[in-house]
Amino acid sequence: MSDFTDKLRPKQPDGPEILTLERVGSDIAVRELAHHLLGQDGFLERQTRILPIVQKEPLFDKTRQQNLSRPERFKLALARAKQLRRLSDQYGWTLQEYKLAEYLVDDVSPYMLQMEMFATTIEEQGTDAQRAHWMPLVESWQVVGAYAQTELGHGSNVRGLELEARWDTENKCFVLHSPTLTSSKWWNGTLGRTANHAIVVAQLLLPHPNFPGQFVSHSPQPFIVQVRDMTTHQPLDGIVIGDIGPKYGYATMDNAYMLFDNFRIPHSALLSRYAKVDPETGHFSRHAVPAVVYGSLTAVRSRIVQHARLVLARAVTVAVRYTAIRRQFRDRDAPDTAPELSVLDYPTVQIRILPLLATTYALHYVGQAMQATYERTRSEIESGSFASLANMHSMSSGLKSLCTMLVADGIEVCRRAMGGHGYGGGSGLIQLNNDYLSKPTVEGDNWMITQQTASYLIKKMSAAVAAVDDSPADALDCQYKLFLQGRASGGSYRIFHEDYDLVRSFQRRATVLAHNAYVERVIKKRSWSSLMIQLHKLSRAQSQSILVSTFFDALNSENNLRLSEPLRRVLWDLFRLFALTTMETDSYDFLASQAASGAQLDILPARIQELMGRVRPHAVSLVDAWMIPDFLLDSALGRYDGRVYEDLFNRAHRQNPLNRMTVNPNYWEDEIVKGRDDMKSIRTKL
Amino acid sequence: MSDFTDKLRPKQPDGPEILTLERVGSDIAVRELAHHLLGQDGFLERQTRILPIVQKEPLFDKTRQQNLSRPERFKLALARAKQLRRLSDQYGWTLQEYKLAEYLVDDVSPYMLQMEMFATTIEEQGTDAQRAHWMPLVESWQVVGAYAQTELGHGSNVRGLELEARWDTENKCFVLHSPTLTSSKWWNGTLGRTANHAIVVAQLLLPHPNFPGQFVSHSPQPFIVQVRDMTTHQPLDGIVIGDIGPKYGYATMDNAYMLFDNFRIPHSALLSRYAKVDPETGHFSRHAVPAVVYGSLTAVRSRIVQHARLVLARAVTVAVRYTAIRRQFRDRDAPDTAPELSVLDYPTVQIRILPLLATTYALHYVGQAMQATYERTRSEIESGSFASLANMHSMSSGLKSLCTMLVADGIEVCRRAMGGHGYGGGSGLIQLNNDYLSKPTVEGDNWMITQQTASYLIKKMSAAVAAVDDSPADALDCQYKLFLQGRASGGSYRIFHEDYDLVRSFQRRATVLAHNAYVERVIKKRSWSSLMIQLHKLSRAQSQSILVSTFFDALNSENNLRLSEPLRRVLWDLFRLFALTTMETDSYDFLASQAASGAQLDILPARIQELMGRVRPHAVSLVDAWMIPDFLLDSALGRYDGRVYEDLFNRAHRQNPLNRMTVNPNYWEDEIVKGRDDMKSIRTKL
Repeated sequence: MSDFTDKLRPKQPDGPEILTLERVGSDIAVRELAHHLLGQDGFLERQTRILPIVQKEPLFDKTRQQNLSRPERFKLALARAKQLRRLSDQYGWTLQEYKLAEYLVDDVSPYMLQMEMFATTIEEQGTDAQRAHWMPLVESWQVVGAYAQTELGHGSNVRGLELEARWDTENKCFVLHSPTLTSSKWWNGTLGRTANHAIVVAQLLLPHPNFPGQFVSHSPQPFIVQVRDMTTHQPLDGIVIGDIGPKYGYATMDNAYMLFDNFRIPHSALLSRYAKVDPETGHFSRHAVPAVVYGSLTAVRSRIVQHARLVLARAVTVAVRYTAIRRQFRDRDAPDTAPELSVLDYPTVQIRILPLLATTYALHYVGQAMQATYERTRSEIESGSFASLANMHSMSSGLKSLCTMLVADGIEVCRRAMGGHGYGGGSGLIQLNNDYLSKPTVEGDNWMITQQTASYLIKKMSAAVAAVDDSPADALDCQYKLFLQGRASGGSYRIFHEDYDLVRSFQRRATVLAHNAYVERVIKKRSWSSLMIQLHKLSRAQSQSILVSTFFDALNSENNLRLSEPLRRVLWDLFRLFALTTMETDSYDFLASQAASGAQLDILPARIQELMGRVRPHAVSLVDAWMIPDFLLDSALGRYDGRVYEDLFNRAHRQNPLNRMTVNPNYWEDEIVKGRDDMKSIRTKL
Repeated sequence: MSDFTDKLRPKQPDGPEILTLERVGSDIAVRELAHHLLGQDGFLERQTRILPIVQKEPLFDKTRQQNLSRPERFKLALARAKQLRRLSDQYGWTLQEYKLAEYLVDDVSPYMLQMEMFATTIEEQGTDAQRAHWMPLVESWQVVGAYAQTELGHGSNVRGLELEARWDTENKCFVLHSPTLTSSKWWNGTLGRTANHAIVVAQLLLPHPNFPGQFVSHSPQPFIVQVRDMTTHQPLDGIVIGDIGPKYGYATMDNAYMLFDNFRIPHSALLSRYAKVDPETGHFSRHAVPAVVYGSLTAVRSRIVQHARLVLARAVTVAVRYTAIRRQFRDRDAPDTAPELSVLDYPTVQIRILPLLATTYALHYVGQAMQATYERTRSEIESGSFASLANMHSMSSGLKSLCTMLVADGIEVCRRAMGGHGYGGGSGLIQLNNDYLSKPTVEGDNWMITQQTASYLIKKMSAAVAAVDDSPADALDCQYKLFLQGRASGGSYRIFHEDYDLVRSFQRRATVLAHNAYVERVIKKRSWSSLMIQLHKLSRAQSQSILVSTFFDALNSENNLRLSEPLRRVLWDLFRLFALTTMETDSYDFLASQAASGAQLDILPARIQELMGRVRPHAVSLVDAWMIPDFLLDSALGRYDGRVYEDLFNRAHRQNPLNRMTVNPNYWEDEIVKGRDDMKSIRTKL
């Protein structure tokens, strides 16, 4: 429909003109930086190759999807996921390529668990025979599986799971049974509507060797179970399954509930690589390799840490581009004829967005470090050494907690910094926010798992105290011993002049908190519960210290020293901005641990403002380098070409289905939409 | 459908048993407290009376509304809003009663602007004749109106609006015209689909008295304009209007865009109580009473401050009840046979929820103080004195910014503290969160408006410096002068022993920040822009100080001294908890301004933990006292009777529409829902 708005243009200068000036005004080589960030494992090349394939597929069109109901979103997602798999077959994609296509389509896939925990668990915990039987079915999606562990009443505390798998000696089978409502499986992705099989984690109950009729629990064990009929797709008799309903985000995922009523599964259902039940005697045996499971949790947390940078980069890309374009008010001290300022020139906007821009880079380098640690530890484990496992587990737990918090909060900070339009559907941040807000909770609640980090650090401190004069076992041991020997005297770091002193300052503060926690717990024997807040702070401080030191190390690495001079200069500024703004949030902590002086903390805000001024001219280039395609951003505010207002107007005027109906505004009349009687159908949905 | 799950019960002790024990375990008189909080203006009595009327209306059933699409939610909301108005007619409700019913139904009403800014603006800025013509039509909803001020390109900066209202001397009318795309009206609630009239704010352009053909802008002025046909409800020729599309929240509100193509409106359209155009000469005259407009903005901000307590109370009610019921892990230092702990007993859960519980009370008392200030100032203005207006404007701006931030962030903290189920649809916090997240932006962006507070405080400090020995003009002047005279020596507050010293500590810190800002701006002539972050902190500190001192004053008032002893004791603990946790967030600030000592700040966490231990046994009673009905909470986790798991299961198993369809999981087949071909209709919606 054509009308007089067709010929209207935004007030000048418009977005494209402004972004061009921003890009010209920075001496950063965006391609070089993009290659540096995303070139190493071929990500950038893959994205370039796969984007056009995905983009031309009508089913992946995102234009109006915000207007769909949750059931419609789910059905669409299932259709999309099928199409993705077909494209994968057609193009012969590797798993990496398939994942990249999925990332661009940006639906949480209803098949997600099939590709992740279902396959992984069979691989890791199945016997050779079980692997040989199941894996071809899984890989060809003949079997679609889920992972059913958490229950309505138990999430974090896996040992508290209530679902029972009782060994029936007579019939030589296990009987799955849900004794209570709270024992219902809950949250299990892919299972609500899609899967026909599941790994079911249940308390293994075996007959008591001495007291007939009594059973002994051998803790939760994984079983592979067919849960739906392969033809009708209906739950099998004795099983109730369904989708748990709408959630904050994850509209496209069918998280499940599932209960069993004395449901029999064969002996072969128990995944038996490490835990076996003798079918004749009912005797339990275990090759205790908890390290494997341990390692698998750590793998998930490491992946979350590595995944964080591109999520935050997406939000920051939108925020930087839009706030560069958006003008509002002229400078209060400027003459009346001055043009309005770009809102990104306001320090109150900079202080919210630019530290997050720096955080995307900090997350990038810590993700790389996490991956390197993971791979090193993994290969050590495979050669029989478990020495580094505890360190990796501690690191991945603390970083998972801190990084997901930084990103989840960061997306919302970006959204709010964009004012009104940040609240609109054109921001591209709504689904990102809603989906990502699951991350602080899943795979170990962010507050709960910091105990694991703190526990490790207290052990390390105890060991350092016990052998203070022995040669250090590792870097952390060395850091603790230097402190204990009084050789790391606090209060003298030149944090504004020596970049390495920022690293030392963060290490000092984390060490002091570790020592305080050690004193409280080990020396004063304080209860664990009463220390929990302190332990959380310790984990946070240690993880911040890791972020700062891995950022520093990366900038000093060979790889980075090869970068062009303007690039290295701004990366160092980002390092400083990240470290100093992180410090400012906990100023008193740094003072109390002699990691910074009062005089330094007093001028911290001024130094931060100065740094922001140096980073500001490069902000647009620094987000461009993340190379997030418009198709993924799906954002009027963040699009590469800067046509913010044209896009917002187009979405509203030409793409909004609500504008196709004319309402009847008279309250004394029942009619809602003129000439249509669709309230009846809505009433039936209530 | 009946199945084996019907007979299952949650693991014991269940929710009802636990909440009963919690309630019995506290010596707080909930009814007394509820009456204290909500009895004064009859709120509680109104709620009790209106709840059953609203609750029995099938159209207001919330059971499945999370599954509706945005267009469906809007249509439902329009039907509900019509029904509310009919009930209002039927029962002869006052405006307060109508508002209460709307609050319980919990949809943002598509008629909202009709009842608010549309009516208010005519009342305040219309001539007697204009009022007489329009108000009966507005009150009977014969005319449905909106308020169209913000534009695609301009929100905060009203002076920058682009829409033109040009006086046509020949035809003696105004011509509304949108010269650019960015001049499109944008965000205007009620206008997208519902309204047939609007107040349209446009730059008044009048012929230049000396240069024929040229026009002079007389700044933005309000016009009342019919925008849609009264029969067809189509936009009038020369007007394009529509709904802007999906947003973060506010699904039920039709926020609009609107453009004009040389659209003529009569001379009578200009609301002319204060601004007039002579139809003969085109001459502009104004009785300058900007105070009225000023006062109207302040009124909106005051209402937001007063509204905040019940929003946060809703989130805290859910969080407290659920975390009291939820058990996870046993105490690490307890024997293996110990029961699992209520998660609200973990300090890491307490530190997130209990300070927010205290905040609901702080918000209550500051809301009362804000209302008192508003009414006093209003009556002063009506008797011709504008002396207090600047103070009220400053106070309402700073508090709007701080309080909406506390509530918006607080809802999300509550949600995350509830772990997995906090992410589910049964939390009751999803819509609350999504809707409330508009508040930090609307009616003055939370970062932008703190400049108004800071500007006022700098003026007050300048005045105090200029007349340091004169007798104080008001309480703030007194506070500043005592500081300037060196009589308020810092560093000696007994914050853990004297409650009033907490007030003094907060005042000291706010005063020091005000003085610093004064020195930078007035003495050192620093640019306004460069000080913005500092000014934001100043506003925040001043507003925190107001929250602490109004809380303190309220607890010392006659009204509170009449409360029973256990109640007063716990209210004082809440006061301390609020003040000390607020202090902890900015510890370094308090140290640097000598408002607290290092020794005090070192033991702050321990004192906070001790206070939380004292508040914990009363937590359930303290949320019960807010008397938020289950109908409003719409939360499985927060329901009064504690049947958390039964309700979650019921929502999933019996009420989730997704479970009515069986999918086809085979990726090599097109079929999505077995036996149905509804993908076609979804594809057309893309």
